[in-house]
Amino acid sequence: MAKPERVAVIGAGGFLGTNLARFLASKVGELRCYGRRRSFPEALHGLSWVTGELADARIAETVAGCDVVIHLASTSTPATADRDIVADAEANVMGSLRLMEHCVAGGVGRVVFLSSGGTIYGIPTVIPTPENAPTDPITAYGVAKLAIEKYLEIFRRRHGVDYRILRVANVYGPYQTAEKGQGVVAAFLTRALADEPLEIWGDGQVVRDYVFVADVAEAIWATMHHKSLSRVFNIGGGAGASVLQIAAAIEELVGHPLQRRFHPARLVDVPVSVLDHSLTTNELGWMPAVDLEQGLAQTLEWMRQFRSGQAAC
Amino acid sequence: MAKPERVAVIGAGGFLGTNLARFLASKVGELRCYGRRRSFPEALHGLSWVTGELADARIAETVAGCDVVIHLASTSTPATADRDIVADAEANVMGSLRLMEHCVAGGVGRVVFLSSGGTIYGIPTVIPTPENAPTDPITAYGVAKLAIEKYLEIFRRRHGVDYRILRVANVYGPYQTAEKGQGVVAAFLTRALADEPLEIWGDGQVVRDYVFVADVAEAIWATMHHKSLSRVFNIGGGAGASVLQIAAAIEELVGHPLQRRFHPARLVDVPVSVLDHSLTTNELGWMPAVDLEQGLAQTLEWMRQFRSGQAAC
Repeated sequence: MAKPERVAVIGAGGFLGTNLARFLASKVGELRCYGRRRSFPEALHGLSWVTGELADARIAETVAGCDVVIHLASTSTPATADRDIVADAEANVMGSLRLMEHCVAGGVGRVVFLSSGGTIYGIPTVIPTPENAPTDPITAYGVAKLAIEKYLEIFRRRHGVDYRILRVANVYGPYQTAEKGQGVVAAFLTRALADEPLEIWGDGQVVRDYVFVADVAEAIWATMHHKSLSRVFNIGGGAGASVLQIAAAIEELVGHPLQRRFHPARLVDVPVSVLDHSLTTNELGWMPAVDLEQGLAQTLEWMRQFRSGQAAC
Repeated sequence: MAKPERVAVIGAGGFLGTNLARFLASKVGELRCYGRRRSFPEALHGLSWVTGELADARIAETVAGCDVVIHLASTSTPATADRDIVADAEANVMGSLRLMEHCVAGGVGRVVFLSSGGTIYGIPTVIPTPENAPTDPITAYGVAKLAIEKYLEIFRRRHGVDYRILRVANVYGPYQTAEKGQGVVAAFLTRALADEPLEIWGDGQVVRDYVFVADVAEAIWATMHHKSLSRVFNIGGGAGASVLQIAAAIEELVGHPLQRRFHPARLVDVPVSVLDHSLTTNELGWMPAVDLEQGLAQTLEWMRQFRSGQAAC
């Protein structure tokens, strides 16, 4: 596949979307951004933007004629989806299927879908976990991602819309805020800068695979135009870190000790999740370039600027 | 789990449902039958019946207080689901999730879900296929079954409704008719008795695992009250037969040659599907008791009576 000229990003206003849109702006001929809201409107200044839900009919115009549609949109998180399983499936599974119908009608060449490496395998039987491991999610969030993945193959077979799936680990970096209850890095940095105690669910031994957002943008770019035999790729940092290790690394960065406040463990957390991304490296030549120390430093730097910007307002 | 006293069968009016309801009628204290329509009302004579869709609110009354709810309902077949993927997911995936909500509200102890051994694995990598094989369906029908399976686990974790899943092979037997385009056995027997040519899609080498409906009813009964470590069970006849072998076996039974009419192969057909049911045998003690020859003979006998009954009307 040649480099895509016309690209739509669905869910472009969130954390990953904002980073991705900025990354793609100079790389593609026409970039169309679509989402419920822009978390950082100024960061997307000058980019084409349409406000809408996944279910809105106007999304048809955004995707029509695109070489690639990148689907990042989700109304829920692993922690929230279980609260109303039916509503979550309606919004995210059915919403994604309706998006696919618009992609078929609009002659879209390829859909790149952001799936969830941290929830789709459930409690992993192999660490690090490869793409062909069993997929037994323990959250409605993970089941919805899995269902969408499987339906993409049916749309490919029936309607010829190709796809790539990125099962992404815990993404962190600039433009992630602690507001939506997502992202331990953003939550800890926010607390650290406010001199508040870090909130930890369980004993802090839960291990996650952290990947810097710029690396994820590079991975998406690779799946947008590379030829590959496979369609499902793990995207992770390649090593696990426990919540307590993240806390310690942030302590190191800010240069002073931080209090920890422990809460009961959550049902939705698997004990460990680390992805094997060797297939991605072999087929796409992708590797995470930013290690945890560098990534945390960049994120802290951004968050300091963001907070001083807020304070200035 | 003790033998269930109060049982609801959802989708009780179809082929499998009619057989199951008749089988269960003498075994359980209270049997509630629910479905879109009764294909053979006289076969369910005297049994409690409510007409309704999966999505109808009245289903709540049917499931309330049941020890076991057996969910057989499906609005589509492997051949039809792909025609409108969104509508199929809405009816079957969302319909099943809403049913689960009613089961939670109604204090149901266990849901027994009829999944699809023939479509859930997609193109199998191992023959016979065990339950832990990859699940990569090539039809929307198979994806919907897979999604429902995975959501059942979330409802169990979140709301405590236990479940068992039967991944059933190609079921055949009395009360299956050729009307809905399902079931090569019913289609061939109907054609044979009408002295019409057998219709074959592809070269007839497609191999399926045929299981007699009375054996499936026994398997459902086992999953209703047995203790088991596993929750997902393959239910098949244990051996594969090609479409041409079925044709030959029926020729043998009726005692005269039958014409074959060949059509182009269908996209929805995997080349071979044979289930490994050793886990089911080990954990539930279940084995298919009726072999293909006996099963075909019983089905032919029923179909002759059915046709003479129709002729008498």
